[in-house]
Amino acid sequence: MKVDLNCDMGESFGMYQLGNDEEMMPYITSANIACGYHGGDPGTMRRTVELAKEYNVQIGAHPGFPDLMGFGRRYMHCNPSEIKDYITYQVGALKAFAGLYDMPIAHCKPHGALYMMAMEDEKIARAILEGIVELDDNIIVFAMNNSAVAEAGEKMGVRIARETYSDREHTETGSIILTRKGSEIDDYDAMADRVVRMVKEGKVTAHSGEEADVVAETVCIHADTPGAVKLAEKIRRALLNNGIEISAIR
Amino acid sequence: MKVDLNCDMGESFGMYQLGNDEEMMPYITSANIACGYHGGDPGTMRRTVELAKEYNVQIGAHPGFPDLMGFGRRYMHCNPSEIKDYITYQVGALKAFAGLYDMPIAHCKPHGALYMMAMEDEKIARAILEGIVELDDNIIVFAMNNSAVAEAGEKMGVRIARETYSDREHTETGSIILTRKGSEIDDYDAMADRVVRMVKEGKVTAHSGEEADVVAETVCIHADTPGAVKLAEKIRRALLNNGIEISAIR
Amino acid sequence: MKVDLNCDMGESFGMYQLGNDEEMMPYITSANIACGYHGGDPGTMRRTVELAKEYNVQIGAHPGFPDLMGFGRRYMHCNPSEIKDYITYQVGALKAFAGLYDMPIAHCKPHGALYMMAMEDEKIARAILEGIVELDDNIIVFAMNNSAVAEAGEKMGVRIARETYSDREHTETGSIILTRKGSEIDDYDAMADRVVRMVKEGKVTAHSGEEADVVAETVCIHADTPGAVKLAEKIRRALLNNGIEISAIR
Amino acid sequence: MKVDLNCDMGESFGMYQLGNDEEMMPYITSANIACGYHGGDPGTMRRTVELAKEYNVQIGAHPGFPDLMGFGRRYMHCNPSEIKDYITYQVGALKAFAGLYDMPIAHCKPHGALYMMAMEDEKIARAILEGIVELDDNIIVFAMNNSAVAEAGEKMGVRIARETYSDREHTETGSIILTRKGSEIDDYDAMADRVVRMVKEGKVTAHSGEEADVVAETVCIHADTPGAVKLAEKIRRALLNNGIEISAIR
Repeated sequence: MKVDLNCDMGESFGMYQLGNDEEMMPYITSANIACGYHGGDPGTMRRTVELAKEYNVQIGAHPGFPDLMGFGRRYMHCNPSEIKDYITYQVGALKAFAGLYDMPIAHCKPHGALYMMAMEDEKIARAILEGIVELDDNIIVFAMNNSAVAEAGEKMGVRIARETYSDREHTETGSIILTRKGSEIDDYDAMADRVVRMVKEGKVTAHSGEEADVVAETVCIHADTPGAVKLAEKIRRALLNNGIEISAIR
Repeated sequence: MKVDLNCDMGESFGMYQLGNDEEMMPYITSANIACGYHGGDPGTMRRTVELAKEYNVQIGAHPGFPDLMGFGRRYMHCNPSEIKDYITYQVGALKAFAGLYDMPIAHCKPHGALYMMAMEDEKIARAILEGIVELDDNIIVFAMNNSAVAEAGEKMGVRIARETYSDREHTETGSIILTRKGSEIDDYDAMADRVVRMVKEGKVTAHSGEEADVVAETVCIHADTPGAVKLAEKIRRALLNNGIEISAIR
Repeated sequence: MKVDLNCDMGESFGMYQLGNDEEMMPYITSANIACGYHGGDPGTMRRTVELAKEYNVQIGAHPGFPDLMGFGRRYMHCNPSEIKDYITYQVGALKAFAGLYDMPIAHCKPHGALYMMAMEDEKIARAILEGIVELDDNIIVFAMNNSAVAEAGEKMGVRIARETYSDREHTETGSIILTRKGSEIDDYDAMADRVVRMVKEGKVTAHSGEEADVVAETVCIHADTPGAVKLAEKIRRALLNNGIEISAIR
Repeated sequence: MKVDLNCDMGESFGMYQLGNDEEMMPYITSANIACGYHGGDPGTMRRTVELAKEYNVQIGAHPGFPDLMGFGRRYMHCNPSEIKDYITYQVGALKAFAGLYDMPIAHCKPHGALYMMAMEDEKIARAILEGIVELDDNIIVFAMNNSAVAEAGEKMGVRIARETYSDREHTETGSIILTRKGSEIDDYDAMADRVVRMVKEGKVTAHSGEEADVVAETVCIHADTPGAVKLAEKIRRALLNNGIEISAIR
């Protein structure tokens, strides 16, 4: 039994620092690197790739909507063709930085509102998947179970890794509540136990109190969750104590 | 005797149309494609690559400063490390689109103020050249003769193609005046003859009236020069009438 | 019987020219000036105010979403508080330029997707109206009849001017289809007659063929509609021939 | 004997937090509020005005270059007409937010590279001053002594307040080194004493060791200087202990 731990990284922009990438690196196996649209800039991208290499962490692209002011967390009704082109642009730019350090783009996880819209809308899911595989068909796409991305990916022959979240509330269908607002958990041990249960049993207690089915091939820890480093440490320990191997998908 | 004809393309942005790319394509051999910083956007980049392929025109990257409001024509005092990262980002993004059409990035020509600063400043020249060759060392860099880019490129073993301009005034050192304002030529036949002379004799009459030395391996025609299509047609005819072959550098 | 003719203006950005503002000015009575978010930039705003003054045309603010790449035509799920602040920012900036020419902001008409969302959603309608009246309670707000903006404005005591469109298809409820794509009318005389009927009878034939009720206190002509100048001229003539006065709301 | 203490504020952008505005407010008398170009966004502007009002601190505009990626700290060669329009836009937008809280724009202090270029170049100084006074001729402009802004302002009849810096090294002419890099002072008591001396004697020891003349009507404390709050507290105490009144210029 094994699981990947992923974290959004490289979301700083110019003078603006966000997250604590270096502190999180020792705890994760996959870094989702912002590509300059919702966050991130060229220098940040290069330094984050370098940091991931140093910590032997796999890198993935974390493309978002062109909405820096809203940090890519606002639904934008772009058409699928626009979205596909945004994917090519952002993943392509990251691939250039990855190449400087002889690293592959191992995976791709869309950001924020783009992620949520992709999970819900087949046309957007397909646009994103096409953008990714036409660029590099070895890239694994992170998606929630039962999502439009997971379903479209299977039909298209794209390798999907099912994702759950350590620090967000889940809905009854196994989806999540995007912002942390609705996520009132602040007991790190409980959060770590919840991760173990998601991996071992494929179950999580939804916000409503009902049980939801999930598949946890990779688990996300947000670096901007208060106490993220402490949470990451607890999750690692709980996983290892339960005999679960922590390693990247690829 | 041969020469390449290049043109800046793909500089439209969203709803904003600029240039007449499709009309210019039949006349040129190298398209310099904007990469989203001073102009261009993902959809425009993809469509411009597709158009170039259709017309059998080589594509190159045309990276600029992150200054859409000033169209990359304003000097910005970025440090060399920032500039190198901007090159990696932009050329990498274009490479992704080129890959969709199985085309290589044949060349790179920085845009506007970045081009001018690179010609004048060795540190910026080196930053740009490093960004390009670390990404792909087959890329040929366009630069004016006697420029910092040409000199640094030679030392670094980068293949440089010497460039002159059909629609800008030249200075006594063979450099150019960036904006068309100082370029009062509007006699297309005279402009075409001037191109022929630059290719055959390596000479051009500078704005001051003195003779300047140039090397014309590639000649730029700006698509936003009034009558650009007509000018391009005249240049082609004049070159062919003088027994000069028109073909891409690579 | 009288009507105002309005046109979106000042939507150029940096090097990018859009619309034919100067040619349209003689035909209209209200200019809706972009404020730098979906289009427009400081220099363009100043020059457009100056142009409006020269032609004795009233100026209004034309604020949009912060989405230059999508020209503000993509729905963005911003919260009402964000939208209110975007209104204050943009209308405030235009007011500064208007002040340089001793002109008031006579009206405000949100742009593109922001306009459509405001017409449909009471919370967004209220946010926009609050932003406007807290800045200057003399500003008249343009809105379609039966819209959330018209209804909220009435409750809040904001002066609303009912708007219809000369160059867009209408729906059965009197709303419009945002993009011109669904608007197949290209017979300028028919378009002009349609405007006259909207003003005189408050009726328009919807896209479905059914009759829709509208109130035409102000009629929009888009400057980027092909043949916009010719259309504007025809509309003016048809209105005058029918004894309808053309003058600004205020 | 009196002095104003000013601080750059409202420089956060969307999700990105910068500075510790609320902690600094009790110590200062003038807040320079970013206007959305180098930093700041509409919501941040509104909240910062509200915060200043709460602490009874005067507000001023802090306009910068349109270079969010470089935080407005990179010289950009815009022409004076562009710069004047950028001033009108940004100060106008802030004025709208100030009006919501019945506060005047008491002063204006350009940001970063725009500030430094204005101090050195008369054409830029004049463009900025014209932009400010044409909008509101009660606004006081902060400028270093012997600068182009101070000189042009005097000729134009603009009220100038001479500024020095608590946390930057000075040059022999009384100017400063823009980035903190060259400013090695980390002894807060020494920095506070240096401020007292600048106010009382009009003298400061320059980076070179020589004595430089300054006029300290207002003193800047950067919120992003490490230990800024502690520094501000020490400066206040030292000033009061020396019988110097701390109050806004206006």
